[in-house]
Amino acid sequence: MKVSAVRALFAVANRPEIVSLAGGMPNIHDLPLGDIASNVAEMILTNGAKVMQYGSGQGEPRIREQICDVMALEGISAHPDDVMISAGSQQGLDLVTRIFCDPGDVVLAESPSYVGAIGTFLSYQAEVVHVAGDDCGIDPDALRETVARLEAAGRRIKFLYTIPNYNNPSGITQPWERRVEVLGVCRELGILVVEDNPYGLLSLDADPVPAMRSVDSDVIYLGSFSKTFAPGFRVGWVLAPHAVREKLVLAQESATLCPPVFSQFAISTYLEHSDWQGQIDAFRTMYRTRRDAMLKALADHMPPGTSWTHPIGGFFVWVTLPEGIDAQAMLPRGVDARVAFVPGAAFFADGQGARNARLSYCFPPAERIIIGVERFADVVRNELDVLDIFGVRAPTKHPQAAGPGAETY
Amino acid sequence: MKVSAVRALFAVANRPEIVSLAGGMPNIHDLPLGDIASNVAEMILTNGAKVMQYGSGQGEPRIREQICDVMALEGISAHPDDVMISAGSQQGLDLVTRIFCDPGDVVLAESPSYVGAIGTFLSYQAEVVHVAGDDCGIDPDALRETVARLEAAGRRIKFLYTIPNYNNPSGITQPWERRVEVLGVCRELGILVVEDNPYGLLSLDADPVPAMRSVDSDVIYLGSFSKTFAPGFRVGWVLAPHAVREKLVLAQESATLCPPVFSQFAISTYLEHSDWQGQIDAFRTMYRTRRDAMLKALADHMPPGTSWTHPIGGFFVWVTLPEGIDAQAMLPRGVDARVAFVPGAAFFADGQGARNARLSYCFPPAERIIIGVERFADVVRNELDVLDIFGVRAPTKHPQAAGPGAETY
Repeated sequence: MKVSAVRALFAVANRPEIVSLAGGMPNIHDLPLGDIASNVAEMILTNGAKVMQYGSGQGEPRIREQICDVMALEGISAHPDDVMISAGSQQGLDLVTRIFCDPGDVVLAESPSYVGAIGTFLSYQAEVVHVAGDDCGIDPDALRETVARLEAAGRRIKFLYTIPNYNNPSGITQPWERRVEVLGVCRELGILVVEDNPYGLLSLDADPVPAMRSVDSDVIYLGSFSKTFAPGFRVGWVLAPHAVREKLVLAQESATLCPPVFSQFAISTYLEHSDWQGQIDAFRTMYRTRRDAMLKALADHMPPGTSWTHPIGGFFVWVTLPEGIDAQAMLPRGVDARVAFVPGAAFFADGQGARNARLSYCFPPAERIIIGVERFADVVRNELDVLDIFGVRAPTKHPQAAGPGAETY
Repeated sequence: MKVSAVRALFAVANRPEIVSLAGGMPNIHDLPLGDIASNVAEMILTNGAKVMQYGSGQGEPRIREQICDVMALEGISAHPDDVMISAGSQQGLDLVTRIFCDPGDVVLAESPSYVGAIGTFLSYQAEVVHVAGDDCGIDPDALRETVARLEAAGRRIKFLYTIPNYNNPSGITQPWERRVEVLGVCRELGILVVEDNPYGLLSLDADPVPAMRSVDSDVIYLGSFSKTFAPGFRVGWVLAPHAVREKLVLAQESATLCPPVFSQFAISTYLEHSDWQGQIDAFRTMYRTRRDAMLKALADHMPPGTSWTHPIGGFFVWVTLPEGIDAQAMLPRGVDARVAFVPGAAFFADGQGARNARLSYCFPPAERIIIGVERFADVVRNELDVLDIFGVRAPTKHPQAAGPGAETY
C-alpha cells in the first residue's frame, strides 16, 4: 500500500480558499441537532450501562430490525437474522473481501469503480478487472466476454462488485431492465454479486430503482447510514445469505469483537424518535439544488470536447476531458487555481481514466460549486492552450489507484 | 473459523439463574451517567456537524493527545503522531496482524494467552507458538529455546504477543525485572514485541508496573478505553514506531475509512469534563472487593489438588484442576449446576489447558461470585467422585481454540 500523490495533494486542498469538488463528505449541517442531543442524552440516562457495554458480534437486534424497514423502501424483503452490522459499509466490504478472496483471485468491478473498494480488494492481493459499460451501467455482453476470457485463462473470479445507484465515481444509475440483465448473466455464469448501495435513498429526480437484492436473495447487499444520516457513527450493514452471514460474523468478532455499540443504539434512537424519512427528503432537496448548480455551471463554462454524466442521485459527476489532457498531471494546476477534484485514474486498477475527473456536489454550497466549476473550466482551458502551443502534453507516469483517503469517500 | 462448542454453550449460559464467571465484561453500572449524558448532549449541540462527520483515518488529534496523557501514567512518553485509534484494541490487534503476518508465519504468545488474539492470529493463518512461563510471566530461557528451535526449523517469527499486566486469562503480572529480561532477550534475538495492556490501570493492590513500552520505543503497544471507561464506544489505540504507524493508518483506511468518530469525541469529552481518574479508583475498589470474594471462596470451597493464581489487577483467576479432570468436558455439568466458566483449552492454540479454567470476577457482584465458586467447587468434586468410581474420565476430543465470542473478552 502506498500513499499516492493524489492523497498528498489533498492535504493541501483542505485550505479554505480552495473549492473542494473532491470530497465525498455528506453535508450534515441541517440535521436536527437539538432533537438528536436530547434523545441521545435520554438514551444514556435510561439505558447507559447497556449502550456503553460490549454487544453482539452480529450487531444489536433492534437496529437490524429497523434496517430491514429501511431496505423495504428499496423493495428488499429481508430478515434481521441475515443482517450483520459493520463499522461503516467500508468495513462490510473489507470483511466480505476477507472471507471470499485469496491472493490472485479476481474481483470484477464497474469501469470506473469506487476507489475505497479497489484499495480494499488490492489489500487482499485480489486483482481488480474492470467490465466495460455504457450510460446504463455494466454492459452485459462485456461482462460475458470478460468472464469467458478470465475463465479461459484459468483465473478464479470471486464476485462482481457493483454500485448500481448513482455510482461512485461515475454518477451512473443502472435502470431496472439492465439490473435484471446483469443478474441474469451472473446467475447463468455462476458469478456472485456484491451490491453496494450507500446513496440508495438519495434519489434526486424520481423514486429509487429497486435494489438488485430485491429480486435475487443470493446477492450480498451493503448498506450504510453514512449518507442518509451521518458517517461519524460508522454504522453500515451487510445483508447476506445465511451461510455467508455466519462467516461474516466470525470475521467481525475477530476484527473488532463487536461493531460500535453506542453508535448502533444512537441510530436506533434517531430512527425511532426523529422524522428520518423527512430528513432524507430535505437532503434530497438540498443535493438536487447543488447538482443542478453543477450541471448548469458545466454547461455554461466547460470548453468544447468535454462531456459529463447527468446523475439522478448521489454525490458525483464524472467528467471526460478533451483528448490529450491528463487529469492527474493537471491536479497541481487545479490546486494553484483554488479548485480540487479527484483525477479519474484513482477509480481504476489498470491505468485507465487519465482523461477523467470526479467532481462532487455534496459538500460545498451551490454558489461555491459554481465558482469551483468556473475555476476548473479555466484550468482545462489553460491545459488546452498549452497543448495547442507545444503540440504534446508533458509526460506523466500512469498513476496508481489511490487509497481511500480523507477526501475520497 | 469454527463456532466452537464453548460458544454454543454460552448462548445457554446467559440465563439469569446461571452465575457467569465466564464473561470478561466490565461492570460499568457505576459510571456517572448524568454527567456523561449532559456532556454528550452539549457536544452534539455545539459541535454536531463535526462529531458526526467522517474523520481522520489515524483518529482525531485531540483524543490522541489525551491518550498520551493516559499512557504517561504507566511511564510511557509518546507523541500523539505515533498513536493510531482503532475500533477497540481488538481491531488494533487485527491490523497489526494484517500488516505483519503472512500465512505460515509464527506468533509467539504466553502460555496461556488471550482467546481473541489467538483467534485473530489464526484467522491470518499464522501459527501461534506458546512460550512456557511461571508465576512471573514469560520464562526468558524458554523464550530463548523456543526461538532457537523455530529458527533452526526455518520458521519466520513475526512478533511476541504479551499481556504483561494481569494477563487474560492467567491473571499473572510480570514484575519489572522480568519485563526487562524478556525485552533484553527479544532485542538480542531481533524479536518484535507487541504489548497488549487493556487492564493496565486497573491495579488492585499497588500502583501499576510501568509498561514495557516505557523503556523500549520499538515495542508496539495496544491500549483501550473498554475497561477503564466503557467498551461500547469501541475505542482503543496502537502506539507504534513511525514506519509501522504509517502502515497501520493505511490498513485502517482500507478497513473502515476511519475509526468511530462520534465515539472518539464522546471519550474526549469524558476525559475533559469528568473525573476519569477518580472513576478508575472507584472501579479498582469495586473490583478489589470482587477479587477478594473470589479468592476467599476458592480457598474455602475448592477440593485439595486444585490451585489458582492470585491476580494483583485485572479481571481473571486461572484455576488448575486436579489431575484427571477435563474442564471442557465438565462445562455442560457446570451449566447444569448453574455456573459458567471458560475452559482453559480456549486459551491455547495447541491443545494444552485441559485441566484449566478461567474464572472472572469482573461482572457479577461479590455475593453472586461466592455462590458461583461454591457451585463450581461442587461440580469439580462431583467430577472427582466419578473419577474415583470409574477410575478413568470420559474420553473427550481436544477442543479447538474458541473464537472471541460475546462472553470471552
